[in-house]
Amino acid sequence: MTEQKFITFLSDFGLADDFVGTCHGVIKRITPEADIIDITHGVPRHDVMQGAVILCNALPYLPKSVVLAVVDPGVGGHRKPLALRAADGTLMVGPDNGLLSLAARELGGVETAVELTCSIYSLPEVCKTFEGRDLFAPAAAHLAGGVPLEKLGAAVPAGGLETFHLPKPVFGERTVSATVIYTDRFGNVQLNLSLEELKQTGAAVGDTLEVRCGDEKWKVPFVQSFADVDPENLLVYEDSYRKISFSVNQGNAARVFQITPGNQIILRTMA
Amino acid sequence: MTEQKFITFLSDFGLADDFVGTCHGVIKRITPEADIIDITHGVPRHDVMQGAVILCNALPYLPKSVVLAVVDPGVGGHRKPLALRAADGTLMVGPDNGLLSLAARELGGVETAVELTCSIYSLPEVCKTFEGRDLFAPAAAHLAGGVPLEKLGAAVPAGGLETFHLPKPVFGERTVSATVIYTDRFGNVQLNLSLEELKQTGAAVGDTLEVRCGDEKWKVPFVQSFADVDPENLLVYEDSYRKISFSVNQGNAARVFQITPGNQIILRTMA
Amino acid sequence: MTEQKFITFLSDFGLADDFVGTCHGVIKRITPEADIIDITHGVPRHDVMQGAVILCNALPYLPKSVVLAVVDPGVGGHRKPLALRAADGTLMVGPDNGLLSLAARELGGVETAVELTCSIYSLPEVCKTFEGRDLFAPAAAHLAGGVPLEKLGAAVPAGGLETFHLPKPVFGERTVSATVIYTDRFGNVQLNLSLEELKQTGAAVGDTLEVRCGDEKWKVPFVQSFADVDPENLLVYEDSYRKISFSVNQGNAARVFQITPGNQIILRTMA
Repeated sequence: MTEQKFITFLSDFGLADDFVGTCHGVIKRITPEADIIDITHGVPRHDVMQGAVILCNALPYLPKSVVLAVVDPGVGGHRKPLALRAADGTLMVGPDNGLLSLAARELGGVETAVELTCSIYSLPEVCKTFEGRDLFAPAAAHLAGGVPLEKLGAAVPAGGLETFHLPKPVFGERTVSATVIYTDRFGNVQLNLSLEELKQTGAAVGDTLEVRCGDEKWKVPFVQSFADVDPENLLVYEDSYRKISFSVNQGNAARVFQITPGNQIILRTMA
Repeated sequence: MTEQKFITFLSDFGLADDFVGTCHGVIKRITPEADIIDITHGVPRHDVMQGAVILCNALPYLPKSVVLAVVDPGVGGHRKPLALRAADGTLMVGPDNGLLSLAARELGGVETAVELTCSIYSLPEVCKTFEGRDLFAPAAAHLAGGVPLEKLGAAVPAGGLETFHLPKPVFGERTVSATVIYTDRFGNVQLNLSLEELKQTGAAVGDTLEVRCGDEKWKVPFVQSFADVDPENLLVYEDSYRKISFSVNQGNAARVFQITPGNQIILRTMA
Repeated sequence: MTEQKFITFLSDFGLADDFVGTCHGVIKRITPEADIIDITHGVPRHDVMQGAVILCNALPYLPKSVVLAVVDPGVGGHRKPLALRAADGTLMVGPDNGLLSLAARELGGVETAVELTCSIYSLPEVCKTFEGRDLFAPAAAHLAGGVPLEKLGAAVPAGGLETFHLPKPVFGERTVSATVIYTDRFGNVQLNLSLEELKQTGAAVGDTLEVRCGDEKWKVPFVQSFADVDPENLLVYEDSYRKISFSVNQGNAARVFQITPGNQIILRTMA
C-alpha cells in the first residue's frame, strides 16, 4: 500500500462554477498523488461561522489530512493567509478570520502558525480575488507533498490569530436559552448545547420539554431518534455531532418555523 | 497496477452539508486505498423508490464494487441494517427497506444477507440519527478492505428481506397504461415500460402515438432520439436505460406538464 | 510514484441524477487507474458557449489530462463526436459544436481530429440520447489508458470543425462596448475585455468609470479587488481569469441588475 496523502477541502465556492475543480487541478499539478476529500462546498456564501462549525463537526471523522478551508469575505484585504499546525500535528490552511479556530481548538490549539508569504509555494501570480486557487490550494498541496510548514512563510504568534467563540447557553430555573448554530438540508436545528448541559435543567430522555422560539411555543418529547416519534411530529434529541437538536420527523423544522443560525431557542423542563 | 477497490455510493444526503464528505472520511480512515465513485447524492429526500430505480439504472455501467446505498427514512428504527452478496458476487450495504432490492434482483437475487450486528466493524458509537456514517459507511469500507461478509453480523434469510416491485404496465386494445418511475433534471419522464412492451400495442418507431396524462392529451411521434423532432416538440423514445420515456426536446416535460413519479400515462397506438 | 492518468470532465449534467456518476463508472471500468477531476457539471443546460468559456478559463490550472467535455444539445443528431489533439499535445473529447474550440485555440489550435467511428472504443451499444456515457466517456478512458488518438476513428480535417469566436469589444471615444460572457454563482459579471483593452480607453486603476447596462448607469471605481470598496458597493476589476469584471462587493451584481451572458455593457472613462 502506498502512503496516502489526504487533503480535506471545505469552501463556500458551490459546484455551479469551475472554482472547486480548478482548485483540484492546482493541487494535482503540484502533488499528483494527493487524495482530496471534499468535506462540502455548500457553506452559505461568506458565512465564516457556519464554515467553522461544519469543519469542527466533520473533522473527527476524517483521516489525518491537510485541511484546506476557504470561506473568505475579506479576500484580497488585510486578513492574513495562514498555514498552521495544531497541537495534534494536523496541518491547516485558510484565511485568518476565525474559520479554522473552532477546529484548531478541538485539536488542542494552534502550535505554530505562519503567514503565507513565501512566493515559491504559491502560483506565480496571486490574484487578489481568488486566493483560494492561487495561494491556499498551492500551500495545501505543498504541505501534503512534504514541504515543512515553516518554509511557507513568516511565523506569526498563535495568540494573535482571529478566533471564534460560539455563544454559551444561558441557564435559568429549569430552563436553558440556547443559540442555533447550524441548520442542515433536512431542516434539523442544531443548538450550542450538549446533552450534559441540557440535563442540568433536570431534563431526561423520555421527558416532554417546552420549546420556545420567538412567539411560538411547543411541547416536544426529548427522545433518542426520529423513529421515536410519528412522521411530521417534533422531537428534541442529541444529534450525530453530540449537540442537542430540534427537528420535525420527515419534515423540515428550519423551513417551517423559519429558524436560522443565530436564533434563540428556550428549552424548559416541565415539572 | 495496484488492485482497485471501488465503493459506489448513492444517497439522499445532498451536497450542501458535510454528510457525504464525512462518510468519505470514515471510509478512507478504514480503507485508505478505497476508490469511491459517487453515483449521486441527489435522490429526493427519503424517496426509497427513486433511489432504488437510480441504483438499478446505473449499476450496469459501474465497475465491480461494494455498493453503499443510504436512503433511510426509518433510520434508528426497526428496519435492519444490511450487508448482502448478490448471486453475481456483488456486495451491497444499506437499510432493509427495499432500496437495494431492484438492483439485487438484476444481479440474480440475494445469495447471502447479514444484519450489521458486529460492533467491531462499525464506529465505536453508532448514533441512531446518522447510521450512514457510523454503521453503513464503515461496513462498506471493511468489505472493500477484504473483510468477509459473514463476519459483519448475523445471517438473515434472504427471503425475508423487504423488496420493491415496480408497478406493471396494463395493456388494453392498442393501448398501454404505464406508470412514471423517474423524472430527471432535464424533465425526461421515464415509464415502467420496455420497448418490447410498447411494441405489443402495435406501435413501431416512426408512428404517432396518442399520449394521455390526466386531462391532457397529445399526439406524439415515437422516434429514436431528440434530434428527430424540432426543439420544443414532444417525443416518445426508448431512453438510455432501455425504458420508454416521454420528453420535450430541449424543454422540460416533467415541469411543464407537472408530471411526477407515480403518475399514470396512457399511450395509444393510432390506427 | 505511479504515473497519474488524469481525465478532466466538464458537462451540463448536473449532480441531481446519476449521469456524472455513471460516466465515472464507465471510465473506471475501462481505465481503473484514471484520476478524474470534475471541472464542473453545473454548466447551464445546453449552453455550449458558457461551457466553452468555463473550459477555456479553467484549463491553464489543470494538470496535463485528457479533457472530456459534454454540453450537447444536438445529441444523436448530425454533429460529429470528436477526439482531437491540440498543438501542445493535450487530448480532448466532445461533440463538434464549438464546445472545445476556445480551449483548443488557447492550446495552439487543433493538430489532429478524428470522428469517434471505431466501435471497439465505445460501449457495445451507443444510445442516441446519452452519447456522453456510451461514446465520449469510453473514448476519454481509452485515451487516458494509452490508446493512440488515431485508432479512435476516421480523421477529419481540423479546418472543418465548428468554432466559436467570442464577440470582440467595440471601441469609441473614451468608451468600450463589451459583451457579458459569464456570470458566476457570486453574481460576478465577466466581460469579453482584457485589462490591456480597457486601458486603451484611457482608464487606469484608481479611476472612476461610467458603466451603462440598458437604461441603467452607475459611477464605479476601477480597483484591484473586492476589499478596495465597501460591502454592497460596485467595482470594476481584472478578475482571476484575466478578464475585466463588474461586481457588487459581497452582493450579487448579476441578480440585482438582471444581467446575463450576451448583455452589452458600456464602460466610459471619465475625463
